[in-house]
Amino acid sequence: MSTAVSPLAPKSYPDLPAIEGVSFATAEAGIKYKNRTDVLLVGLAEGTTVAGVFTRSKCPSAAVDWCREALAGGAARGLLVNSGNANAFTGKKGRETVRLSADHAAKALGVPAETIFLASTGVIGEPLPAEKFAGVLDDAAARLADGPWLDAAKAIMTTDTFPKVATRTVELDGVAVTLNGIAKGAGMIAPDMATMLSFVFTDAPIAAPVLQALLGKGVAGSFNAITVDSDTSTSDTLLLFATGAAAARGAAPIETIEDARLAAFDAALADLLRDLAHQVVRDGEGARKFVAVTVTGATSDGSAKRIALSIANSPLVKTAIAGEDANWGRIVMAVGKAGEPADRDRLAIWFGDTQVAAEGERVPDYSEAAASAAMREEEIAVRVDLGLGDGSATVWTCDLTKDYVAINGDYRS
Amino acid sequence: MSTAVSPLAPKSYPDLPAIEGVSFATAEAGIKYKNRTDVLLVGLAEGTTVAGVFTRSKCPSAAVDWCREALAGGAARGLLVNSGNANAFTGKKGRETVRLSADHAAKALGVPAETIFLASTGVIGEPLPAEKFAGVLDDAAARLADGPWLDAAKAIMTTDTFPKVATRTVELDGVAVTLNGIAKGAGMIAPDMATMLSFVFTDAPIAAPVLQALLGKGVAGSFNAITVDSDTSTSDTLLLFATGAAAARGAAPIETIEDARLAAFDAALADLLRDLAHQVVRDGEGARKFVAVTVTGATSDGSAKRIALSIANSPLVKTAIAGEDANWGRIVMAVGKAGEPADRDRLAIWFGDTQVAAEGERVPDYSEAAASAAMREEEIAVRVDLGLGDGSATVWTCDLTKDYVAINGDYRS
Repeated sequence: MSTAVSPLAPKSYPDLPAIEGVSFATAEAGIKYKNRTDVLLVGLAEGTTVAGVFTRSKCPSAAVDWCREALAGGAARGLLVNSGNANAFTGKKGRETVRLSADHAAKALGVPAETIFLASTGVIGEPLPAEKFAGVLDDAAARLADGPWLDAAKAIMTTDTFPKVATRTVELDGVAVTLNGIAKGAGMIAPDMATMLSFVFTDAPIAAPVLQALLGKGVAGSFNAITVDSDTSTSDTLLLFATGAAAARGAAPIETIEDARLAAFDAALADLLRDLAHQVVRDGEGARKFVAVTVTGATSDGSAKRIALSIANSPLVKTAIAGEDANWGRIVMAVGKAGEPADRDRLAIWFGDTQVAAEGERVPDYSEAAASAAMREEEIAVRVDLGLGDGSATVWTCDLTKDYVAINGDYRS
Repeated sequence: MSTAVSPLAPKSYPDLPAIEGVSFATAEAGIKYKNRTDVLLVGLAEGTTVAGVFTRSKCPSAAVDWCREALAGGAARGLLVNSGNANAFTGKKGRETVRLSADHAAKALGVPAETIFLASTGVIGEPLPAEKFAGVLDDAAARLADGPWLDAAKAIMTTDTFPKVATRTVELDGVAVTLNGIAKGAGMIAPDMATMLSFVFTDAPIAAPVLQALLGKGVAGSFNAITVDSDTSTSDTLLLFATGAAAARGAAPIETIEDARLAAFDAALADLLRDLAHQVVRDGEGARKFVAVTVTGATSDGSAKRIALSIANSPLVKTAIAGEDANWGRIVMAVGKAGEPADRDRLAIWFGDTQVAAEGERVPDYSEAAASAAMREEEIAVRVDLGLGDGSATVWTCDLTKDYVAINGDYRS
């Protein structure tokens, strides 16, 4: 099993500023990993609103069930995340563990258990020993601080080879508001969504229903447009917390989605989510290539996205990319199997800037050398035009390498 | 790229008897491969009926288009198969090539071109040089013989590591009738169907519409219940030819699907198709394990099959099996992502005879040693009971190994 940092990792990490109302600490509970942090405890100021998007798995983890219930309250005072054990498919014990974990965190933070949000990631089916939290949470609560954010991102990693952070700043009523996000995820990544945890924090004063609407929009072009292996986790969780602290500095609270002042925040959130989602793909297990698959000319945007995902999830396409092989025949195969409207004799295909197929056959002056050169790049753009309509979509994925098999062939042992 | 024979290959091949009305020859046209046969020409007696099932790809190969048209006639006098080039996504040239190939074969066999069936498999998107057939088909037609069938199976191989043959004999009106089948396929194997070619021949006298009905039934539990990598080829073709020669020996023609005399033939055909389909899985690219996934207790048979395919297609399940890891958490994940009715807290899971989960959690006396022992076997049975209804289904697949990535990372080069 390779433990080297992904070659697609960012060359440097941004410096994340403090966010008023958010403080956190990490700890080593020794749940599965030794000699590394595996717990993140976050304290949130009174008045913090929250929105969430979760896995669509029919077998969600106990923590996901808990968060869905807690979300109904719309208020958040704390977040507890552990890595190494997903507390998924653990039956009644899992529900008890979630309750105990929330109680521990609530007591440590001095807030109601119903305002604690929980996320667990790691092995499925193993009972999570909640008692391991008992010792570390009181200590962590005593150490809450407004940084460093990279430590928070590190504590939630499992098979990730690098921590994932992003930050954006926008103006709201002339006041600077900040968005900080962290994420983890490397395998079992597919819409909707992934073994993917992501937590975004802002000091903007935004009501919970508005936050939820923004998050639902933002996720479509980010976490729901990436795939590593088509597998969907039982634990996927994306939470957005807004402390509202910027209100004291003059940013008036936003109560409706129609508020024109939202535009900049909305764009920044979408951009930050896409940034984090791309980092997850860049850390795809065994990944050596970052691939953008764009489909245009489809009968609808939805159809374009389904075709793009069919391409991005195809093991034959992904192994060809791993082999730096401009095998556009497999792109045709993946278009054909998507079950969406497509006309073989109108298809056009590009690798990078090199068009390899037009009107259903190889272009006459096709340059294998140019196509091969495009495939040797670390970032590869695959584009398909269907010639049928105006629908388009882009999804992001990585290649399928021997390391993916190695990493996942003995993950549990 | 590994060229060793799959460890899951049959230990011996059955001896296939001659079938009255079927004669064939193989040839070396040098389309892609050197020093091996890559063409199979089959002559069929007058009166031969035919049925076919093809890929559901929206971008089928030119040969598939041709066969669909030819099938409407219901009569077959010849079959031409080449390996090394799929003549798929070759535009107008592809259609001309198909026409030229059929003309060549028709001339060589002395029959109408409209009764010639065609199949091509191999690289997609490269023009197939039809002129390469010109020389070899006349010669092949002069060498037509009623065996050996293993040679026919070898000529149609691409990345296959062993030829696939099967035979069955049943009585019809007290007369022995024979079914012989050959198949090829190793990757791009998924319902519905696979880069899979299979040709079945019988001397039973059965009308074309009846043949078609039998084939449709037989394919559901065989070629449409296997998956290697979830990818669906543009060229999948399964053809069933019935020469009717047994009529002269006293087997009265079968004109309707209600004919009670069909029962034995129907069962034998289904069994032969399943045999061939299993051989395709056993030759799955890089496969080291033959895996049967059975889902019971689903709300319907269709729901059970969709869940079984979600498990069988999951890269994380398949890599765990490659790693001999009894990772039942990934089975839960795959059940959850199928989108079919499932209740986490009713799930039961077995590896072989070892139950690992019951009522949504690990069984109390779970034996890792027993589960691990089951995973070390060459043939692995995964069973999931949903506890919801009476729906059930079994699908067959193989593991996902580093060799799959190696084989597909540089196939074209």
